Amino acid sequence: MNAHDRIEEALLSALVLGSLAPPAAAGAADPAGCPPKLQAAVRHAVFPGGARIRPQLCLAVARACGDSDPRLTDAAAAAIELLHCASLVHDDLPCFDDAALRRGVASVHAAYGERIAVLTGDALIVLAFQVLAHGAEHAPQRLPALVSLLARRVGAPTGIVAGQAWECEPFVALPAYHRAKTGSLFSACTEAGALAAGADPQVWQAFGLCLGEAYQVADDIRDVAFTTDLLGKPNGRDLALCRPSSATELGLSGAIAHFDQLMARAVDAIPPCAGAAALRALARAESERLVPQATVRDLALAA
Amino acid sequence: MNAHDRIEEALLSALVLGSLAPPAAAGAADPAGCPPKLQAAVRHAVFPGGARIRPQLCLAVARACGDSDPRLTDAAAAAIELLHCASLVHDDLPCFDDAALRRGVASVHAAYGERIAVLTGDALIVLAFQVLAHGAEHAPQRLPALVSLLARRVGAPTGIVAGQAWECEPFVALPAYHRAKTGSLFSACTEAGALAAGADPQVWQAFGLCLGEAYQVADDIRDVAFTTDLLGKPNGRDLALCRPSSATELGLSGAIAHFDQLMARAVDAIPPCAGAAALRALARAESERLVPQATVRDLALAA
Repeated sequence: MNAHDRIEEALLSALVLGSLAPPAAAGAADPAGCPPKLQAAVRHAVFPGGARIRPQLCLAVARACGDSDPRLTDAAAAAIELLHCASLVHDDLPCFDDAALRRGVASVHAAYGERIAVLTGDALIVLAFQVLAHGAEHAPQRLPALVSLLARRVGAPTGIVAGQAWECEPFVALPAYHRAKTGSLFSACTEAGALAAGADPQVWQAFGLCLGEAYQVADDIRDVAFTTDLLGKPNGRDLALCRPSSATELGLSGAIAHFDQLMARAVDAIPPCAGAAALRALARAESERLVPQATVRDLALAA
Repeated sequence: MNAHDRIEEALLSALVLGSLAPPAAAGAADPAGCPPKLQAAVRHAVFPGGARIRPQLCLAVARACGDSDPRLTDAAAAAIELLHCASLVHDDLPCFDDAALRRGVASVHAAYGERIAVLTGDALIVLAFQVLAHGAEHAPQRLPALVSLLARRVGAPTGIVAGQAWECEPFVALPAYHRAKTGSLFSACTEAGALAAGADPQVWQAFGLCLGEAYQVADDIRDVAFTTDLLGKPNGRDLALCRPSSATELGLSGAIAHFDQLMARAVDAIPPCAGAAALRALARAESERLVPQATVRDLALAA
């Protein structure tokens, strides 16, 4: 099965595990007894997805490390994507970004209200750990390290929740903010891929962190260079919300050069392994997807 | 060590594990790099606690089952209390109960703002699973079942998150609502206590569910019979928010009689075991703490 299908299947299985998949017949009562709005909102938050780059990265690293427990790899990849979806739902809340659009459609709070959006994020975090536990039922030896890793990369003191909390502080250490807000979950992907395959996660951390930093810069670039339509969410938010942005700081061309450097550093950080070529190809494809020649680089040159 | 000290110590260890304990010197920068408001808000949500009845129940059942892995028991008890604290923080948010008081002091959103309150709940959920994983590092065999249990009792389709989500539906099945909102986490306590001790959780579920139902009724009674001062949070909220309440439905005396029946059923549901007498004593003490003779029963008789 290719990576894309494997990830979508793992996410669908996750929703089935949490009794959050749609009832067999549309309009039928849910036999599991889940409140219908919560069920619909969780599905809305997970499907259809974006690029699913985080679970792809987790899978790619697990494969590079031999993928000795594919069921656990799938669980780790799905858990990371669920945690990512949870952070998007809570980030979009009125008290944070107050974003009405996400992935080209209504954000969860815009579609289902603020209360259901808070609960959807909560349910997704809980489901992520449930999925991980389910994937390790047959062989629990790797579970404590995987749960600890995801918790550290998502929670306090330096995970994505902490990254978001830096936005509530009067003084922000920018590198700590960026690393927590984006880098942490990217390093979770590479480290979890290794852990699920029984390999040493440590040597995979730098690859994830560099990629995460590159993604943060790409996000800044796209916020400036993409239309709202292309972006699937409102553009120009960094300037509007006075958020730190490398595109504002370095200019569009400067930010693109910085992005290219970070992607090169990420590729250099791939440890020697059988799957290194595939990982380099993934990084190249992501580079073009994130900062495309036609819409961004040519635009920057013309400016 | 007595149960009270064991629980406070387990919760303090949990905050240390999450780098959320206070820095050694007051006013010193946090070496772990946690955003200060998030760190302070998490501590505010956990200390000082309420009656800690949920972790007490978990500990009591584990002891009744032999408490063969005390480190795991402590982790399970702390995880459940952290999940309970998370649900209180999110329940108090402006979009839900909009409560300014909790346990006699400012609620987290009143003290630290709405954004930090959302993130505090998220961080506490994540920390709960981290604590569980840490407690199982030396012997991971019981971890998958424990993580799955807590996830089911907290998340969708029938955990406390789902219970809260029923408040967003136009039609609510009352028994499903009560069972999800209160019963689920109480049954998590008894089941997790058994699981942590390597015993069968199934036979312990009814005891937890009956206790949870009794607590829901006690909550309704206290909302009517207690002053805001005694309650530590605003009283009369059920009527103000048009929430279903057994005190409104049955009258104060009727609700007290119903509470007594539920506590009697809970005691009857204790499986035969060495610790049964201690569990019966715990239930009796809780009964008097929740619905005290002097302030509630005498009041109902006088009415």
